[in-house]
Amino acid sequence: MSKPTLAVVGATGAVGTVMLDLLSTREDVYGEIRLVASPRSAGKKLTVRGEQVEVVALAPEVFDGVDVAMFDTPDEVSKQWAPIAAERGAVAVDNSGAFRMDPDVPLVVPEVNAEAARNRPRGIISNPNCTTLSMIVAMGALHGQYGLRELVVASYQAASGAGQAGIDTLYDQLEKVGGNRGLGERAGDVRRVVGEDLGPFPAPLAMNVVPWAGSLKDDGWTSEELKVRNESRKILGLPDLRVSATCVRVPVVTTHSLAVHAVFDRPVDQREAQAVLAGSPGVVLVDDPEAGEFPTPADVVGTDPTWVGRVRRSLDDPKALDLFLCGDNLRKGAALNTAQIAELVAAEFGS
Amino acid sequence: MSKPTLAVVGATGAVGTVMLDLLSTREDVYGEIRLVASPRSAGKKLTVRGEQVEVVALAPEVFDGVDVAMFDTPDEVSKQWAPIAAERGAVAVDNSGAFRMDPDVPLVVPEVNAEAARNRPRGIISNPNCTTLSMIVAMGALHGQYGLRELVVASYQAASGAGQAGIDTLYDQLEKVGGNRGLGERAGDVRRVVGEDLGPFPAPLAMNVVPWAGSLKDDGWTSEELKVRNESRKILGLPDLRVSATCVRVPVVTTHSLAVHAVFDRPVDQREAQAVLAGSPGVVLVDDPEAGEFPTPADVVGTDPTWVGRVRRSLDDPKALDLFLCGDNLRKGAALNTAQIAELVAAEFGS
Repeated sequence: MSKPTLAVVGATGAVGTVMLDLLSTREDVYGEIRLVASPRSAGKKLTVRGEQVEVVALAPEVFDGVDVAMFDTPDEVSKQWAPIAAERGAVAVDNSGAFRMDPDVPLVVPEVNAEAARNRPRGIISNPNCTTLSMIVAMGALHGQYGLRELVVASYQAASGAGQAGIDTLYDQLEKVGGNRGLGERAGDVRRVVGEDLGPFPAPLAMNVVPWAGSLKDDGWTSEELKVRNESRKILGLPDLRVSATCVRVPVVTTHSLAVHAVFDRPVDQREAQAVLAGSPGVVLVDDPEAGEFPTPADVVGTDPTWVGRVRRSLDDPKALDLFLCGDNLRKGAALNTAQIAELVAAEFGS
Repeated sequence: MSKPTLAVVGATGAVGTVMLDLLSTREDVYGEIRLVASPRSAGKKLTVRGEQVEVVALAPEVFDGVDVAMFDTPDEVSKQWAPIAAERGAVAVDNSGAFRMDPDVPLVVPEVNAEAARNRPRGIISNPNCTTLSMIVAMGALHGQYGLRELVVASYQAASGAGQAGIDTLYDQLEKVGGNRGLGERAGDVRRVVGEDLGPFPAPLAMNVVPWAGSLKDDGWTSEELKVRNESRKILGLPDLRVSATCVRVPVVTTHSLAVHAVFDRPVDQREAQAVLAGSPGVVLVDDPEAGEFPTPADVVGTDPTWVGRVRRSLDDPKALDLFLCGDNLRKGAALNTAQIAELVAAEFGS
């Protein structure tokens, strides 16, 4: 039985780079791996599984003979090209927002709803947004125990959620503010030092926090905040789940953090909830504040799991838990979950 | 009628420094101003109201003839010395946590409960914690309109909330990480670069967020999180208010930010809530996301008001609002509110 052929579209981007690393370190389930990118990156050589592979330009023919095509591309590229890949016989696993809410496209987190990946009438499977992914494995585990009713989410989102431009902008700004003692004590000082070019962010990010991610939607909500609501509902199969999110960018390169207030149908218990989380695949519990142990982005970046700490039962609601979660937004939040979905599909070829 | 005599205890600290600035720029309501600090700072000269004033060492006699004594000191210093000041005839206005929950000590935010300042059986008035103060003026205004029932709070707290040591630590760490491209992409990298000495924080703060402020209390809650709950209840006169807070430190020098999900007794309206906030003394509404306008710490630091933006009605609960607030933790969050309370007391001498 021959191994399935994989195409990685967007191989040269921030998520694509992590994907090649994952493909080189996870169990090798593929035969050929084709690297695909925009014409201006074609001809470039990238390393995957220890071998140099030449990047080819995106075109319909690159999908001929491909079994699984991952898209780590902007919405408009995915929107156009994932159906073309599907038409040519590949299962498209898309990490953009183009198809996530399409009722004919499953939105899959393997630890939560792996079975949904099999029902894909358009030949496309969507990967959730990185902010949703930073909490949903843990929330799925707690939902199984207590029945989830409501989520109130405040995010601490990393610069790399805005792609390579976000990473570069934060490094540029940190370089300018570093060693500048006294900065940040008067309004406008940080703006003056970081300069006019704010990259993909609407305000300086170094020495600041910015309550904005994504684009403006109705009634003051951002696209990012609506994604947390709509995607959580779809993944968990809870169309009436109450969700309020406030998404805030922080000066961290990679790894999203979330403060979550979760309300359940049944009363919760702190120790039991900790045990449920500790026993869930893809979740690591780090929750010993007496020993100074809780997750932080600096300790979590580059790792696969969702890290959870600060698990507390609400003092005023026996059915509510408050938690703090960290997840690498480029790994579980993007490339890793896409790789896991692709492996589910690849396994269908295995028998 | 002679003007009241003021003593500033803790004049050389992070909050004391802002206090001297405020005393030099606000309406001058005092006669003599005495600057008091620990014996090791005695003899130092500081500028207030354009004049050099010699710092005197803390001793019972320094309160003789004093009408109002502000304490910007640690809990243990306030606990010992505020009663001594009161015994000698001064009204003590204390910015520590020593007396905040004492039923015989009012906890005052002039815009919310000024009348409480008159009932002070121990001769002591408490100033709330900086995190509570960063939201309570805005929450008081919304409570007046809709009747507050529940608060879910996630904080983005500045380094200076941990005093001068917090400020120094953040500057030290920013100097070490600035210009260090590629840092923050693997677990432990930031820890290695900032070194072992983390100052008052339990984890690196530069290029990180740390879900911890204060000390460990029962069931995993921190002292800071309990202060937000208990002080909000006392200031608003709502002993049964439901409050869940998760307090997180971010790499910002000064100005705390908060994401708040507030649930009310009555249905809310986005435009009406914005109008209530815009019309409230001590609150500035900056809420035009289409124009990129919302508050951020870098734009707010050094100013007096509570800045509010991102006002949204919850999509799933017509009685809930989600907001983002910023307030300078050394000004309204500490020195300014103390100065305002002291001015309420000073006004009693005026007629």
